[in-house]
This record gives sequence, C-alpha cells and structure tokens, in this order.
Amino acid sequence: MTRPLLLCLLALNGPLSAQWAESDQARAGALFEEALGNGECYERLRELTKGIGHRLSGSPEADAAMAWGAEVLAANGADSVFVMPVIVPSWTRGTLCSASCEEMPLRVTALGGSDPTPGDSALEAPCVVVRGIEELAELPRDQTEGRIILFNRPMDPLLINTGSAYGGAVDQRGRGAIAAAQAGGVAALVRSMTHAYDTVPHTGAMYYADTVPRVPAAAISTVDARLLAQHIEADPSNRVSLAMNCRDLGEREQGNVIGVLRGSERPHEIIALGGHLDSWDIGEGAHDDGAGVVHTLEALRLLRAIGYQPRHTLHFVLFINEENGNRGGKAYAAAYADANERVVGAMESDAGGLVPRGFSIDAELQEVEWLQSLLPFLEPYGLNSSRQGWAGVDISPLKEHTPRPVLIGLMPDGQRYFDYHHSARDVFENVHKRELELGAASCALMIMLLDQHL
Amino acid sequence: MTRPLLLCLLALNGPLSAQWAESDQARAGALFEEALGNGECYERLRELTKGIGHRLSGSPEADAAMAWGAEVLAANGADSVFVMPVIVPSWTRGTLCSASCEEMPLRVTALGGSDPTPGDSALEAPCVVVRGIEELAELPRDQTEGRIILFNRPMDPLLINTGSAYGGAVDQRGRGAIAAAQAGGVAALVRSMTHAYDTVPHTGAMYYADTVPRVPAAAISTVDARLLAQHIEADPSNRVSLAMNCRDLGEREQGNVIGVLRGSERPHEIIALGGHLDSWDIGEGAHDDGAGVVHTLEALRLLRAIGYQPRHTLHFVLFINEENGNRGGKAYAAAYADANERVVGAMESDAGGLVPRGFSIDAELQEVEWLQSLLPFLEPYGLNSSRQGWAGVDISPLKEHTPRPVLIGLMPDGQRYFDYHHSARDVFENVHKRELELGAASCALMIMLLDQHL
Repeated sequence: MTRPLLLCLLALNGPLSAQWAESDQARAGALFEEALGNGECYERLRELTKGIGHRLSGSPEADAAMAWGAEVLAANGADSVFVMPVIVPSWTRGTLCSASCEEMPLRVTALGGSDPTPGDSALEAPCVVVRGIEELAELPRDQTEGRIILFNRPMDPLLINTGSAYGGAVDQRGRGAIAAAQAGGVAALVRSMTHAYDTVPHTGAMYYADTVPRVPAAAISTVDARLLAQHIEADPSNRVSLAMNCRDLGEREQGNVIGVLRGSERPHEIIALGGHLDSWDIGEGAHDDGAGVVHTLEALRLLRAIGYQPRHTLHFVLFINEENGNRGGKAYAAAYADANERVVGAMESDAGGLVPRGFSIDAELQEVEWLQSLLPFLEPYGLNSSRQGWAGVDISPLKEHTPRPVLIGLMPDGQRYFDYHHSARDVFENVHKRELELGAASCALMIMLLDQHL
Repeated sequence: MTRPLLLCLLALNGPLSAQWAESDQARAGALFEEALGNGECYERLRELTKGIGHRLSGSPEADAAMAWGAEVLAANGADSVFVMPVIVPSWTRGTLCSASCEEMPLRVTALGGSDPTPGDSALEAPCVVVRGIEELAELPRDQTEGRIILFNRPMDPLLINTGSAYGGAVDQRGRGAIAAAQAGGVAALVRSMTHAYDTVPHTGAMYYADTVPRVPAAAISTVDARLLAQHIEADPSNRVSLAMNCRDLGEREQGNVIGVLRGSERPHEIIALGGHLDSWDIGEGAHDDGAGVVHTLEALRLLRAIGYQPRHTLHFVLFINEENGNRGGKAYAAAYADANERVVGAMESDAGGLVPRGFSIDAELQEVEWLQSLLPFLEPYGLNSSRQGWAGVDISPLKEHTPRPVLIGLMPDGQRYFDYHHSARDVFENVHKRELELGAASCALMIMLLDQHL
C-alpha cells in the first residue's frame, strides 16, 4: 500500500524528522514484528485470567498474581525484580447480593467497599428514581427519606469519547451512597456505568464520608434500571428489597511488583511502564487491567528480544490497589520523591486491550509537541492520535514530583471498553489477540522513544 | 477534554481551514448526535441479518433483501427509489460438504462457484501440502498428479494492515483450483483467509479457466489446515476424502436498489454512497456487507434528519453481486458512462461495521490533499487516518469514466474483520452498536463534504 500522505506530511514537517532517527524506524519495525510474530502476551493473559482469575486487593488471588508477575518479569529478562510493600484495604463481596421490586428480581451487584445491608438481611423500602446527585439534592426530603435511591442517569451516548461519558456519570457511583444518606435514604442503587443495554451489573469503587451515615450501595444493570424506573413510575408505592452480606476485612500487606532494566547512561533516572495487577472481583479483570499487566510484561520481553540497551533505568511496574485506593501508585511515587533515583517519565496501560489508537500525554508543552511530531512516523502502526490529558491513575501521583515527569497513557479504542469494565463480561474471551499484541508493541515503542528523547 | 494538539494543527494549516466551513462543523456534530442518539442502523441490521439472513446473488433471500432495501430507502426519505436490473450468477452450496483424513474429520466448506465432487460422491486421494501457488508450480509432477492439493500459506501476521495480509494470500483461494488442475491435482483445499486460529472455515470466490480442467475446491479451517499438514507430514500416504454437492444454477435477474435525493444546484451530477446487498451463504453477511448496507440506508436518514439539501444528486446504492462477479458495480458504472447524468464522486462501505478510523481515497492528487486537509477537523470523530488506495469493489468500475470520479472507501479498523469475513461467524452478534453507528455517521459526513466540495 502506498503512503503518499505520509510522505507529504514528512515533507511539511522537515525539521521534526530529527525526532525520529533511522534507528527508531528499525527498532519500531522489529518490536511490532516480534509482538505479532512471536507474541507471548495473549498466553500470559490466559494464565493470569484463567489460571488465577480476578484479584481484588488483599485477596489470595492478588498474592498469586504478584508471585506470577515476579516470575514472568524475571523470565522476560529483567535485570532484577523486587516487591515494594504496600498496605492495602481488603473487602469481600460475600455470598449474598439480591434485589427485587415486588415480584420482579433485579440484577445487581454490590459496589466495592459497600457496607452490608443491616444484619445481612433484606432491607425493604419504597424507591425514588433520580437522574443524578443534583436532581436528588433538589427533591423535598419527604420524597427521599426512608427510601432506596435509584440513580438512573445514563452515560451520555452523544460523546464520541466513552471515557468522557464515563467521567460525566461516575459521580453517582462514587458519591451516590453519601448523597443518598444525606437525603435520608436507606440505600443507593446505581445504574451501571456502560453504554451497553444489557442485564450485566458493573461494580466499581464507592466511598463513605466520616460525617455521613453509611448506607449500602449496589450497581444495577442498565436493563433493570429501566425496568425498575418504569415500575416505580407506574406505582410509586412499589417497594424494593435489597440484601447484601459484603464486608470490610481490614488491611493487609501486598505490594507493587517491579522489574528493572538498568540504564547504561543515566541509571539514576527512571522511566516506568505499568499496569495494575489488582482487579474487581467479578469477571476476570482481563481488559481492566490484565491487558495493562501483560502489555507491561511483554514490552520488557520485546525490548530484550530486539537487544535494546536502555539509556535510562526502566521500571516495569505491576501496581497494586488501583481499583479501590490507589495505594500502589501513591507508594511508588513516594518511594522516588526524595531519592537519589528520580522518575523522569512514566507510562500506563489501563484503558483495555483493544486496538491501540495513540497516546494521551500529561506533560509540559514541549513534550506534547514532541509526541505530536512523532505521529506521522507512528501512523504505519495505527497510532495516529495524541491527546493532552489524563495518563493513568497509578502514575498520576508522580505529577507532584519536581521537576514533573512526562506521563503518557496508552489510548486504545474505547467504544467497547465499558461493555466489559468492572463486570462479569471482563473475561479473556473478550480480548482480541492481535489487538492485545499491538498494544504491547505500542507500549514498548513509546518507552523506547521516551528513553531516546528524555 | 482539551484539544491543544488540534488547535496546533489548525494553526499550522491556516489556509486549509477554508476547506471546512462553520456550517460543516455544525452539520458534522448534528449527524453524529443523530446517529448515536436516535440511530436506527443497528435495528436495521438486525432486520436484514435475523429477518432475512444470508443472501447470495440469485437466491430468494437476495430478492427479499432487495424488497426490504427499497422499502427502507423510501422510509428513510429518498425522493425516489428504483431497481437497476442486473443479470447475476446463481450457485448453491448444496447439502453436502464433508472431508476427512483417514479417521480425522476436517472442517471445510465449499468455495463459492466450485463444481461438486464427481457424481456428488466422495473423492479420495493422497494429499500434498504447499504454501502457495508458486511452491506448487515448482514441485515435480509425480508429487502432485492425482493428489488433493492443500494450499497452506497463512495470511502474514506481521503486516499491521490485515487487508494487505488478505491481499497477499488470497490468490490461492481465487486461482487455487486452476493451479491444482494444471499440476494434475484432483481437488484444492485452501487454508481459510483469517488470522484467527480456529475451527471455522471461510468461503469466498474461486474461479475456473476455460482451458483448464475444473476440479472442486473447498476452504479448510486454520486449525484443520495445520492438523492435516501434520498428518501428511507424518505419513505422506495418508489419504484425504472430500465430498461436495454444490452446483451452478445458471443466471437470473436481480438488481441494484437505488434511492435518490435530487440535487438543487447540479442535479445531473451524481455522488453515490453504497454497500452490497448480496453476501456469502454462510453466516449472515453482517459485517460483509450488511454493515455497508445499513450505513448507506442510515446515511440517507441522517442527512434528511438534519435537513440537509444536497447540491448534487445523491444516490444511495445497494449493489448486487459484489461477492461473485461484481455485476452490480459494473452495471451501475455502465449506466452512467455515456448518460446525461454523470457520477462525480462515489463512496463505498465494504470493510465491515467495526470502529471507523478514516477513509481511503482513489483520486487525483488534488482530492487526496483535500481529504488530508480535513483530518484535523475529522479527528474529534475518531477519523484520523487517510490512505491513498483502494476504495471498494462495487465503485471501482467507475474509474473508467472520464473525467474520473473521486472514489472514497470507509476505513474501519481491520484487526477483527477477517475473523468474521465469509464465515459462519459473520453474524449480527459480532457487530457493535456504537461502532456501527459511528460508521453510518462517518459515511453521511463524507458524502456531505463531497457534496460541498465537488
């Protein structure tokens, strides 16, 4: 296939071509060929998801995943591997989560961190339906007190960027229980964060406030959210029943698992690539964030396979506790805040194993322009988009470092991501082999480019 | 989400911004909002695939699809709808297609257009395995005569562009039976054209030459191709059995179904948008090319919904017989070759219903540059790639017109496409609602831009 457009861009961007050396070209090709021709990340993801399964912080499965990750980092060529201890929260979904409206069963799942229903038995109350926290705040108290609050605002389907739609709706999951209690409500039901219209509830983190009573909170599938809203509209006296025996289990020690490739020129300057090892406790955490974990492991293997010798020290980081606390990300940033070693760049893959489309960047203008100047060279690999903005939860605490490191996020296509995210559908079978491999090669390529550029 | 990169590109490309008027911006937004907020294409695809099913040229299902397409074109607001008669070939897969190697069953399906095995009964012969036609041509005749030839060359996994990998391997499907017969072979088995390693055979067009004996040809799944090659390598005397009762049914009249929106300024100049109504006769033709059909139907509805008044006359064309003859595309080009009305631009959606990434263009340099100049404006819709090259089978005969019309192809992401293509997996369930809707809006947008530009 001819590429006159690319050539045309190159001609326009003459001076920028210095950003992309002939050696970069050769390495980029070699990384993608190794990933697509001899890729191991798909089988690694099978091990993590089918062999270990989901792995909430504090769970025995998270322990198993840490041990597995350390083994693979070593097998994939790390000079050394270490565990950075992190105290993580532990919570269990328990064995009971059911809900109904009169005779109609509702498909729900506890939000992560929720208290159980009182006495682990069914809580029954009338229900009021609101679109979001703002609408709830406007209702008179006699319409909310003693009720179960259904937050039924959908993700905005008109936004092309599904991450923006998620960001615009997720407050009702995170703060819905607080808002419900403030209005005198007895529990919160939250419409699942997905564009899919189906019967699958999606969990995720929720929070309590010290000064507000703690009420239980569960996610409800989009289909059931609609059905429930119709039942309540038809007869506002209809009652909803909710029973959950999830509970907090305190704290325990787990950790970030880190593989190191020692730099030849600037060994005390670190460039990190990571994904998070923990996942929610339904599904298999395949896209979120098994994909980021195997991208990270495979990027190390790919760089080794092509014989790349890094200038900076590279860290391949399997973070713990992204989902419900980000204690792994905070611990990693804290460990290098005042040390002789400092982090000059970090990249995260935590947006799924779908086909990569480019990179987001959270950095100073000069680096933003650097990334943009690379796009014509990245286009043959399907990487033709760059956006200034959010790079990832685990690496975001590094922003407080001075000087601020360059933060980059892998940006896979997002149209399907929230179909799976935090749900029973986030399983190995919903990850595509080639798309996953392209993501791994994209991570390896960007780490190599950062290493050459910084 | 901020877009400093986009602004930066705009600054660089100042003079080009005249290509994208404020009215284009408003219309683009309105088209995507209508597609994502009130989209009908997903339910239309359900009607076509679940209501009618697959629809090989000449079949009663293709008749039903023509009638359905005419109804939807009218319902979606065409000023007029007509059928352009086309004589199409008719072929049936029959009721029997089975193969085995000694005691091992092989998952196969007849290639489209193949003759049956002699007497509709099992043909049994030893087998020789080659990678492709070139390797077969180099073998001495005593290693090929009287044998079944297994063409086992995979699509090249190292190519990022799966269409290029398909193009590089598909000769053994199209010409394998001819090459096999020239080597004295008695049948051809062709490794399925897919990157997926699975048990699903993929059919597709095959051809005979007048001067060469006609031998039967079937596709074999990638898993079975490997197993069979291993069996033959282990014992070259192992025999393969193949039985098929597919057959040619002659010709009959069907046609292209065309909806018209009359142009206000240049009514005798046509801009066409199309997909093909026929499909292969396994699966449901959901991605190939149900997606292109409903993209076309929905683009008409979207342009109507936003009140767009075209300058040129717009044709929304449901082509017949793309899969095994392209007689619909040839008839359409012939109809406007010497007419008072001429086609100045044409666009095709025939690369699946996956997430759109941009457009291919087959045109003069000036139009190629025009498309490239639009990319910064198309980026917010996820359309950030343009390639000069192939635009589509159905519209390609228009290239012989003078002056040559601008030809554009919708370019969805291709990583998954060949998992489904021409197989039993090409079903409605494997099409994603939002991805399909984005494709429809992208088609409508490009037709509107062509109408403004040409």
